Amino acid sequence: MKTDIPIILASQSPRRRELLSRIGIDPIIMPSTITEKINTDDPAEAVKLLSRQKAENVAAKLESCYLVIGADTVVAADGKILGKPKTHEEAAEMICRIEGKTHHVYTGVTLMMSDESVPPVTFADETAVHVYSMTADEIAAYASSDEPMDKAGAYAIQGAFSAYIKGIEGDYANVVGLPVGALYQALKAFISKAEKEV
Amino acid sequence: MKTDIPIILASQSPRRRELLSRIGIDPIIMPSTITEKINTDDPAEAVKLLSRQKAENVAAKLESCYLVIGADTVVAADGKILGKPKTHEEAAEMICRIEGKTHHVYTGVTLMMSDESVPPVTFADETAVHVYSMTADEIAAYASSDEPMDKAGAYAIQGAFSAYIKGIEGDYANVVGLPVGALYQALKAFISKAEKEV
Repeated sequence: MKTDIPIILASQSPRRRELLSRIGIDPIIMPSTITEKINTDDPAEAVKLLSRQKAENVAAKLESCYLVIGADTVVAADGKILGKPKTHEEAAEMICRIEGKTHHVYTGVTLMMSDESVPPVTFADETAVHVYSMTADEIAAYASSDEPMDKAGAYAIQGAFSAYIKGIEGDYANVVGLPVGALYQALKAFISKAEKEV
Repeated sequence: MKTDIPIILASQSPRRRELLSRIGIDPIIMPSTITEKINTDDPAEAVKLLSRQKAENVAAKLESCYLVIGADTVVAADGKILGKPKTHEEAAEMICRIEGKTHHVYTGVTLMMSDESVPPVTFADETAVHVYSMTADEIAAYASSDEPMDKAGAYAIQGAFSAYIKGIEGDYANVVGLPVGALYQALKAFISKAEKEV
């Protein structure tokens, strides 16, 4: 992805930064300072709203012209949105909800020019994740490790939890934290418009 | 994955080694010395045969008791098996075959005790990969990079090619080179049998 427009990632997730670097983007990191509030039960709507709030929060602090990427990821299982576990007990509860069945991961993304020269773009991508049945020992061992602690849904698909992944339907990167394929396609169109406005 | 049986990976792929490390396996690396010959047009049969040949080749060289993992990955598009490109021109031809449509990736795996105390297990996993349409410039830029050169099908799903991945159906790790989920399940059963024989 080639552009002279400086890109800001409104997230402190090292995984999102790494995913962007794979497609040739080395963003400035500027986490948003919003308090995350979800007023909807629809996970796709929730992540779109939160990605928009994050991008707007960061864009409002900027003096000159940047492209801001906001993103938010949630896991939905049995109609319930799973956030990040605060304790190992919470992690074990979340793993019990997802083992042996299928859940869905949603990442919302907002692309925004800080000078509003181009209308913002917001979209969400959904990936289904099929998880093998796990024994009580496997659940306890995984939940007591460090890996689940800062992850939505209490697992890292790219970590030790890969042992329990039967398969997915959709973009794998979306589960890690950014739908890289859809994001690249959206960025191409967005940057093309933004460069005409410079 | 806990066992006292030493594990050998009959492959020099650093990606396979990394995938095993995620599930707690730090194998001894001992690449096979077979000449790869495929006598079948069925990609699942081909990778099963080759994984078996690789495991047998390495197992035959061992004096004491090891668990040997053999693996082979191919990409099949339009009924044709795509190997590793030898030149950037071949890489461009392969990318032209897969862009804008769906292809399938097959990895065959064989688990074998070098002392034959347990019957070997061989299986294959299949993942469908949906690729976005690419412009001629995008194909040329990707094919002229180093990334495609040692990869079956001329791309790395975990690299810059992630920009062009619309989604997959199946295990992502299978596309990288080892079906980690299915492998973990098979290893649990295989190691349980092997430990009874020790």
